[in-house]
Amino acid sequence: MKIYFAGSIRGGRQDAGLYEQIIQYLKTFGEVLTEHVGDPSLTSAGDDGPNDQFIHDRDLEWLQSSDVIVAEVTAVSMGVGYEVGRAVEMGKPVLCLFREGTSSNLSAMIAGCSDVELIYYSEFEELRKPLQQYLFSFNASK
Amino acid sequence: MKIYFAGSIRGGRQDAGLYEQIIQYLKTFGEVLTEHVGDPSLTSAGDDGPNDQFIHDRDLEWLQSSDVIVAEVTAVSMGVGYEVGRAVEMGKPVLCLFREGTSSNLSAMIAGCSDVELIYYSEFEELRKPLQQYLFSFNASK
Repeated sequence: MKIYFAGSIRGGRQDAGLYEQIIQYLKTFGEVLTEHVGDPSLTSAGDDGPNDQFIHDRDLEWLQSSDVIVAEVTAVSMGVGYEVGRAVEMGKPVLCLFREGTSSNLSAMIAGCSDVELIYYSEFEELRKPLQQYLFSFNASK
Repeated sequence: MKIYFAGSIRGGRQDAGLYEQIIQYLKTFGEVLTEHVGDPSLTSAGDDGPNDQFIHDRDLEWLQSSDVIVAEVTAVSMGVGYEVGRAVEMGKPVLCLFREGTSSNLSAMIAGCSDVELIYYSEFEELRKPLQQYLFSFNASK
């Protein structure tokens, strides 16, 4: 199973450590194409490629080749929104994770999208079970 | 011509006045479906509908029926990213406007997308000419 993990880069790296935890856990279920999103050395300058077109086209190719998209949507990010939008329009399965108790206000375009599965949580440990259930059920239905 | 204007709502309303200026100008070229995005009384609570699914489905219907999307992408917004992503994947023409000289760092998914037309500017007055050119050339090619 190829998993596209989406998290904020230029929108802000305050959740990079959490992304890394989620990515390490996702790797027990399949290949995570976007492992660099959890890299603590990647800053909000977002220089994870030689230029923006390279980054966009590489990420889009990964998105197209993925079986499932998992997006952490707490930190507000234009790029994560874009990836979720393209994936939904492609008909790909999308799971969004939103952490409650922050000042972040989840977009109605995510919270109100019936094509997106949405998990509300407070800390990483709460994600293990629902992530496992989602990815197992998804794998079984393939 | 039906124009879908996208701007930040729950991501933050600091640019609401600017959105209103852009919308008023866009109205000289066609119908702006999302005029409420510039409404100064709309706060970042984003309660521009009875619930999130209503807001999402209404906005998506407008997006689908629009001829062109104009998105102000300076204020970081998950919803604007989502709308641009869906529109690009639908094959719709998308024009993004990014204001330089703020602390905002434009996403590589917007800046590096060759299917998006991107205008950098500093203040509203600079937008008149390029917006007119874009919308006229687009209308002429229909």
